[in-house]
Amino acid sequence: MDVIDAVAPLRDRVAAARRASRRVGFVPTMGALHLGHARLIERARRECDCVVVSIFVNPLQFDRPEDLRHYPRTLPADFEMCARLGVDVAFAPGTAEMYPADPSCTIQVGRVASHLCGRHRPGHFAGVATVVMKLFQIVQPDRAYFGEKDAQQLAVIRHLVRDFNVPVQVEAVATVREPDGLALSSRNQRLNAEERRLAPALYRALCEARRSVAEGTTDPEPVRRAAVAAVPRHEGLRLEYLELVEPDTMQPVESIDGPVLAAGALWVGSTRLIDNLTCDPPGTGAPAGPVRE
Amino acid sequence: MDVIDAVAPLRDRVAAARRASRRVGFVPTMGALHLGHARLIERARRECDCVVVSIFVNPLQFDRPEDLRHYPRTLPADFEMCARLGVDVAFAPGTAEMYPADPSCTIQVGRVASHLCGRHRPGHFAGVATVVMKLFQIVQPDRAYFGEKDAQQLAVIRHLVRDFNVPVQVEAVATVREPDGLALSSRNQRLNAEERRLAPALYRALCEARRSVAEGTTDPEPVRRAAVAAVPRHEGLRLEYLELVEPDTMQPVESIDGPVLAAGALWVGSTRLIDNLTCDPPGTGAPAGPVRE
Repeated sequence: MDVIDAVAPLRDRVAAARRASRRVGFVPTMGALHLGHARLIERARRECDCVVVSIFVNPLQFDRPEDLRHYPRTLPADFEMCARLGVDVAFAPGTAEMYPADPSCTIQVGRVASHLCGRHRPGHFAGVATVVMKLFQIVQPDRAYFGEKDAQQLAVIRHLVRDFNVPVQVEAVATVREPDGLALSSRNQRLNAEERRLAPALYRALCEARRSVAEGTTDPEPVRRAAVAAVPRHEGLRLEYLELVEPDTMQPVESIDGPVLAAGALWVGSTRLIDNLTCDPPGTGAPAGPVRE
Repeated sequence: MDVIDAVAPLRDRVAAARRASRRVGFVPTMGALHLGHARLIERARRECDCVVVSIFVNPLQFDRPEDLRHYPRTLPADFEMCARLGVDVAFAPGTAEMYPADPSCTIQVGRVASHLCGRHRPGHFAGVATVVMKLFQIVQPDRAYFGEKDAQQLAVIRHLVRDFNVPVQVEAVATVREPDGLALSSRNQRLNAEERRLAPALYRALCEARRSVAEGTTDPEPVRRAAVAAVPRHEGLRLEYLELVEPDTMQPVESIDGPVLAAGALWVGSTRLIDNLTCDPPGTGAPAGPVRE
């Protein structure tokens, strides 16, 4: 595996693969890799000839400086996992390589970012879209892999690619969960034992929404209320949002007559966790039980 | 010459050229082609194996609906000029092909657009940068050619390419002028005989700035005042701005100690014309006389 920290040699390396007509797969990450990332990489490995993983903690997408400061960084272990999974190139640039100067041009994200995390983390998705657009230009992959755990991010990237005709195929990979339902996230590392015990509350609330939709409730408000009520009252838990949205536009639905996305953000102590589940009304999509994830 | 009006066949056509290791040159235009465009195309023709010219009047970059409505459209003549100049592909998509839906993601342009046209045409450069980024993703050229007449646009594109690491080389081509100094522009078509006679006033004002800088004036304010004073008082003329800016950042200079750009916008009747000249202080850049353009 090649470890590369600068744009020019990364481009040369990928260009060589492309000249050999090899399909390039790309997995952009912020490091602190876990089994969820492994699934993205494994999928890229199966589908592509040359797999590039980027590891870059992008300051542009952090709305809170302390979140950026405390974001877990585990570079040696990340490289080890990449090598074990057969990654061809790990691209780990520093901030000065990615942003040699304050950028004059950035991506502005409109409607798709008006709810959920977009509403609660101003500038977050503009930062995500800007760095992903940069990485797409640097790596020029044929396919890029994103986790469904970050559903709104995935929607933003789909819009970015569509709106700018970026020549890359976006692939979504299912969320990986702990046995108790907690979605894998680099931020889970920051939970203490008590917080870890409380953390699956978000998943359980989303399951409640899914159950209610599967039973045929078409008004989103009672679905939402039932899900919110499923979060236990506990001083260590604060639900930031829980909404039912249309999966492409990420806009709240007024009536449930097709698959909707239940998405939430839950503060567990000082750690903010997000999760989502697709909710299929009876007779649409996957069978209602056992429910799909 | 192939005339193509949709993204998918354009991509196939250019991909075939690229597979044959041909260097792709790209000239983005809004049509109403004149000798200035011809110079861009000729340069691309000399330097590249496959030349693509796009003709698309981009609604996103018009801040005034009546300007969009009256923008000259001369498609048959444009195709004829392209064919005569040996263009390989003329790409002339309709608005629905370029913007099938209201985009969620657009380019936001910061500091480089804070003065000159950027200050007077809100949203203009965001629209320019957005469509150029789209066209770059669609055509994926090795080189792209822009006229120096639109100096701030050129600076915005340079920042766009740099900030997003777009794999394209930006090439600037000198402004083409009428014998009386008027810079060629598609908008010149809209001038009546009297307006056409008045129109070179902007060029002459910029020459006054250049002369003053070449003589060693280092304070930009008297340079600017002399240039503004050179615009005749006439009811058909209104100077929108005339500024001295740093050529990369497009920020007003506080002192002239290197090449600066004198840039202006002049309303001639209901037509808005822009122009610019590089001004070299004595002992820098090109010799002071005969002055370079």
